[in-house]
Amino acid sequence: MNITMIEAAADRLAGHVRHTPLLTSPFIDEIAGRRVLLKPEALQHTGSFKFRGGWSALSALTEAERRAGVLAFSSGNHAQGVALAAQRLNTPATIIMPGDAPKIKIDNTRALGAEVILYDRAHEDRDALGAKLSEERGLTLIKPFDNPEVIAGQGTAGLEIAADAGALGITRAEVLVCCGGGGLTSGIALALEARAPEMTVRPVEPEGYDDVARSLRSHRIECNEMSAGGLCDAIITQRPGEITFPIMDRLCGPGLVVAEEDCLRAMAVAFQRLKIVLEPGGAIALAAALYHPDQISGDDVIVVASGGNVDAGVFALALERYGS
Amino acid sequence: MNITMIEAAADRLAGHVRHTPLLTSPFIDEIAGRRVLLKPEALQHTGSFKFRGGWSALSALTEAERRAGVLAFSSGNHAQGVALAAQRLNTPATIIMPGDAPKIKIDNTRALGAEVILYDRAHEDRDALGAKLSEERGLTLIKPFDNPEVIAGQGTAGLEIAADAGALGITRAEVLVCCGGGGLTSGIALALEARAPEMTVRPVEPEGYDDVARSLRSHRIECNEMSAGGLCDAIITQRPGEITFPIMDRLCGPGLVVAEEDCLRAMAVAFQRLKIVLEPGGAIALAAALYHPDQISGDDVIVVASGGNVDAGVFALALERYGS
Repeated sequence: MNITMIEAAADRLAGHVRHTPLLTSPFIDEIAGRRVLLKPEALQHTGSFKFRGGWSALSALTEAERRAGVLAFSSGNHAQGVALAAQRLNTPATIIMPGDAPKIKIDNTRALGAEVILYDRAHEDRDALGAKLSEERGLTLIKPFDNPEVIAGQGTAGLEIAADAGALGITRAEVLVCCGGGGLTSGIALALEARAPEMTVRPVEPEGYDDVARSLRSHRIECNEMSAGGLCDAIITQRPGEITFPIMDRLCGPGLVVAEEDCLRAMAVAFQRLKIVLEPGGAIALAAALYHPDQISGDDVIVVASGGNVDAGVFALALERYGS
Repeated sequence: MNITMIEAAADRLAGHVRHTPLLTSPFIDEIAGRRVLLKPEALQHTGSFKFRGGWSALSALTEAERRAGVLAFSSGNHAQGVALAAQRLNTPATIIMPGDAPKIKIDNTRALGAEVILYDRAHEDRDALGAKLSEERGLTLIKPFDNPEVIAGQGTAGLEIAADAGALGITRAEVLVCCGGGGLTSGIALALEARAPEMTVRPVEPEGYDDVARSLRSHRIECNEMSAGGLCDAIITQRPGEITFPIMDRLCGPGLVVAEEDCLRAMAVAFQRLKIVLEPGGAIALAAALYHPDQISGDDVIVVASGGNVDAGVFALALERYGS
């Protein structure tokens, strides 16, 4: 994994990805006590950064591999990112989703042209099902984060940060990233190592699911006791990846840990001050900037808001509690 | 009023305004039956396009005029646009607002450094109060739409549309614009006349407040019976302007008229598919594209979403009714 792979991914993504801006608000700066520059990947195609990695991985396949098709496991953002990339690259996509995934996410993934295969979380072995399908149909598995081309694709967000912050004269800042398995975090860290070496990436996780923060402290991979559940489901994984963790361990500053309730508060702030929709996990880096300012240093902080695929009911809850 | 003024406004706005993108979603295209490209001015500073006109007008004043300060009447978006532009240009701003305006809007305008003077809608004459203040303090009145430099500022959104649509190969399309007094509509129409002459601007208004649509039919200024009220308050004015109407009459296609309820539906679609927050009046052009496709022609339609300053309660209502 190196900057050359990220630059190559950026070349393949050019004209297909949205270059998301850095948004600011004087009201947000006042709460945070410093200037906050927010990169809204919720505005990316399919509503999260996952389209970057999906496109990067699929566009790196051989013609024969693309013709044969791809396979992904996902209940959410990765499914949609892979499905849209596959549709636009004329690649058959098979997505294995839990049968109890929200109907809207299943419908969206199908509407993007993917074949969705549902499995029973309690009684079926997802990995065995995937291996069988992959072998029978000759499909290439696209892992959600522990895949070099996926990491390279997510890293293109880091190239944009270096360029756009640099244009504002900002070369030194902490960069807070919503963190699950570490694909986005490690990709951005690699991009900034090359393009903005005075910036430091800091992963942000929900309370109770702070496997990356603990792994960064102990310098070895630690696991969460719980592997699912909670409002921040989109960024919850059991442990950091075999490829992503060594990158994070070498390049990242200490992890930040945020309460779910603060994610809801940050969603309401993003609604009111930036007019964007964030999902709880996608708001967690903003929540860290707003509500843990003493754990951050510098006059400027960059926040990556990773996604906005939230149910209307959860969004309405955030507004009801914190919307005025 | 001509393209030279809009180009000059764009030069003054460079580095200060957000160049908003053109957003798309395959799900929105499917509802609308054609490709929809949405320009989210909700993501503009202060949450609406009004910052363009405010900055354009203030930056066109002489040094002496700027030092003396500016005056605006507004209960909403124009107030915030003028206040932020004034703050950044070190100009004192006095904003006259109705005493029953939402507290959050009064607080926001004050937080942007403006002096807010409240008046009693029932018993005080706003114009007389403004004239008195203007004379006593030597303030320059910044009208919300019937001001050439304000129109030129709003027209910079049209320059961006011509450039960004052109880069996608789109030179012929209807451009639907949320329309109140016509500042944004006439400014965009002038910009497109020069830069994308095969595009046609069409104003969109709420039912019961279709003064512009009627005026375009009769070729003279018609008034609304009601001058305030309704969910689309941000774009409700009693009549088109003396400067804006002749421009619209010369350049625009027929007006479109949309039910309030369809604005709420469009807000929910923008939430779900684009991850942006729109106010009812700011969603009305999208509502026209989604729910009146038979009144529009062409394979592509461009929609300008003018603002996102909506109370949490109204947004939650849209989600509750149409969010799933």
